[in-house]
Amino acid sequence: MRHIADIPADIPAVIAAVTILAAALPGAADGQQARPPSFVILLADDLGYGDLGCYGHPTIRTPSLDRMAAEGARFTQFYCAAPVCTPSRAALLTGRLPVRSGMCSEKRRVLFPDSADGLPDDEVTLAEALKTKGYATACIGKWHLGHLPRFLPARHGFDRYFGLPYSNDMHNVGRGDPPVPLLRGDEVIEQPARQEALTSRYTEEALRFIGENRDRPFFLYVAYTFPHVPLHASARFNGKSPRGLYGDVVEELDASVGEILGALREPGLAGRTLVVFSSDNGPWLTQGLAGGSAGLLREGKGSTWEGGMRVPGIAWWPGKVSAGRLITNVVSSLDVFPTFLTLAGIEPPRDRAIDGREVSALLLGTAAPPEAPFFYYRDETLMAVRKGPWKAHVLTRPGYGAAEPKRHDPPLLFQLERDPSEVHDVAKQHPEVVRDLLGEVERHRAGLRAPPSRLEARTART
Amino acid sequence: MRHIADIPADIPAVIAAVTILAAALPGAADGQQARPPSFVILLADDLGYGDLGCYGHPTIRTPSLDRMAAEGARFTQFYCAAPVCTPSRAALLTGRLPVRSGMCSEKRRVLFPDSADGLPDDEVTLAEALKTKGYATACIGKWHLGHLPRFLPARHGFDRYFGLPYSNDMHNVGRGDPPVPLLRGDEVIEQPARQEALTSRYTEEALRFIGENRDRPFFLYVAYTFPHVPLHASARFNGKSPRGLYGDVVEELDASVGEILGALREPGLAGRTLVVFSSDNGPWLTQGLAGGSAGLLREGKGSTWEGGMRVPGIAWWPGKVSAGRLITNVVSSLDVFPTFLTLAGIEPPRDRAIDGREVSALLLGTAAPPEAPFFYYRDETLMAVRKGPWKAHVLTRPGYGAAEPKRHDPPLLFQLERDPSEVHDVAKQHPEVVRDLLGEVERHRAGLRAPPSRLEARTART
Repeated sequence: MRHIADIPADIPAVIAAVTILAAALPGAADGQQARPPSFVILLADDLGYGDLGCYGHPTIRTPSLDRMAAEGARFTQFYCAAPVCTPSRAALLTGRLPVRSGMCSEKRRVLFPDSADGLPDDEVTLAEALKTKGYATACIGKWHLGHLPRFLPARHGFDRYFGLPYSNDMHNVGRGDPPVPLLRGDEVIEQPARQEALTSRYTEEALRFIGENRDRPFFLYVAYTFPHVPLHASARFNGKSPRGLYGDVVEELDASVGEILGALREPGLAGRTLVVFSSDNGPWLTQGLAGGSAGLLREGKGSTWEGGMRVPGIAWWPGKVSAGRLITNVVSSLDVFPTFLTLAGIEPPRDRAIDGREVSALLLGTAAPPEAPFFYYRDETLMAVRKGPWKAHVLTRPGYGAAEPKRHDPPLLFQLERDPSEVHDVAKQHPEVVRDLLGEVERHRAGLRAPPSRLEARTART
Repeated sequence: MRHIADIPADIPAVIAAVTILAAALPGAADGQQARPPSFVILLADDLGYGDLGCYGHPTIRTPSLDRMAAEGARFTQFYCAAPVCTPSRAALLTGRLPVRSGMCSEKRRVLFPDSADGLPDDEVTLAEALKTKGYATACIGKWHLGHLPRFLPARHGFDRYFGLPYSNDMHNVGRGDPPVPLLRGDEVIEQPARQEALTSRYTEEALRFIGENRDRPFFLYVAYTFPHVPLHASARFNGKSPRGLYGDVVEELDASVGEILGALREPGLAGRTLVVFSSDNGPWLTQGLAGGSAGLLREGKGSTWEGGMRVPGIAWWPGKVSAGRLITNVVSSLDVFPTFLTLAGIEPPRDRAIDGREVSALLLGTAAPPEAPFFYYRDETLMAVRKGPWKAHVLTRPGYGAAEPKRHDPPLLFQLERDPSEVHDVAKQHPEVVRDLLGEVERHRAGLRAPPSRLEARTART
């Protein structure tokens, strides 16, 4: 499955590849000052498809996200690009499948505190691309794309960083992990991080960044630490949700979203910012009640069943994205990179494959994106493919646990728009669909250049 | 489990028991003309908890029900009183558990075209009670409380009836069933009923009834035939939903709700009508893609797992029920009877047990109802009990299929607000809760007087 690496480009060449296309800017045609929109990504960690009020959860109260959806567009077929944390985030920030950047591995599914590597320099992140157009940029929250200084957000286009370098459960004493650190820029400012304070501190940092950048375009990436385990809520939320601690944590996250959107509704900022809310992957079901719910979807985090990769997705841009839209088109976190760049009038890099599609017309309600296959990877392995309503599983495997992958020949075939829970295999009834999907897999594999994994190298222990 | 029958009361005595309490009327105190509110019940058949957009379904488009929820209150812990059709409807219209009226049976779970019996005369239906206060009443749609003339809606307080006497799949040729008839009043007007036209004809009838009764209080009970199988949609909806025929049928039902609410928004009617939408039981999972989805809930129709009995519930009364409320309190279709009566200024019958609670204060946002146990019956058998967030299963059994009931000692215990999917049995950790719930079961059984089943008698075949 692995091929030789993409040819690494040096950094100046990468940046040069990001051409500014001022003429393509919204507003440029009618003679307005061409100020591009600001962007905010609000990313939950391990939040499942079924965990929000507006996605049907019975007892988790999420009035701010429900309002965000009512004022904007709620997606029902929004995918993350990988079912675990590190590859999913690499894909979100680059628009590229993790297998192209080496940010996946079956041996070590994510980066750990003893990892020696991180996101390669030659990857162009959303922050780097937007900086070419003068955006102020901030990463607040969990990074998880390399905790060593040369991989931290400052090396990937972020002016500012405040958060955890990896997951909040990564203090394995046996492995020699240090207590989980809280960083500002490259500096550890607290260790162990006080986890119950994280969500409110992220909110404060986000509000400060917005306040300081009212007069220029900005890109704010808030990667919440929760509801990844261990769950911690502040005193204001602890013990308040009927759903227990998991609910407390999601309700605190919801309140944070409410505060951030509140700041963006202020005079002078209203209508200038596109906000996207999502999750890095599905719910961690093996955590019991400390894990979330995929609603009607099958399985969860770690797997390429729908519950592992279909996640909540909400887009909010008052005046641009019509209120109360329900969007059932297939989109993914890979699409964020080319879409934001287009809206900012920046051409995506041409020297590499970009897997995401530019879907601004879908957001603005002017056109549906053309049909394209979506590939479900578990680590380096292509497990399934979706095209239109059809999904073929070549391989299946539970998200967690000892079970080996199971090969399906013919693949399992599900019509997801009719059978979102993946219960009724219809491969026998639709051999032509199976052939078409397998053809997509072959074409994809033929065009793929996958470098060695970056997730396996470890630092020497002293 | 069965005890001797309730003492039957003759009809005049029953009606006399329904005392009019004009002083309790909303509006009476401030000297207004005391016109009580009108009531509409919109009841889907076999619609699951997860089948509407506002309950998280990804591809069934229900803009009218979503708007109804946005303008009113959406319930996330709303129960029907029985997991199959006949007992559920008997309970809705009487406020009494079906075991009290004989409207349940393990041998024959619902009424069939060869059934000889129906809802007893001495039961007081919502329509009968409201008629004491001058309400115009109509039953449009599926009745299923006795198809012989002496059991039809006209005998139970409805001025008008248009619809099917039982389920739309009840044409078993081997059993000697006639084609499914469509009735107006007691007369068969079409046989077989053209099923693809039913939803739009129900809508027309409902709109006509509303139009003819603009100037007086009315009670309209629309019991949709669908999405019970066999699924039929009109040409306008057929083949339109991404969810396939099941989606077509639900989307047509949604459009019907939109038309009915539209009529109730007209000048002169606006604000005068409380509308409740729900389903008679959970989705019929063994029907494959012709059955619906219980979302994150376990199991479906026929069972006392949550998916069998927790259903969508939406209340709409502009100006009285605040817009956009999410109500997580436990309520059930049993509560409709005493609540509507209270709002109409009518005292419920005192000569019999009423299992529902009066929850008008919850609807109006002034107070939560006191905690009370909710009993999950499968036919005549008490299977489980809920109190607060806790549910104890004494017995479990799949909704359909050959599996025998399984007794649990100690009962299975789930904390439903934390574990809505009933995955984590916590009986061992909470013996005191188990004891309390078993005490509720004992008290309930001690006070129960259950007559013989009415669902088992068959007509002689010629």
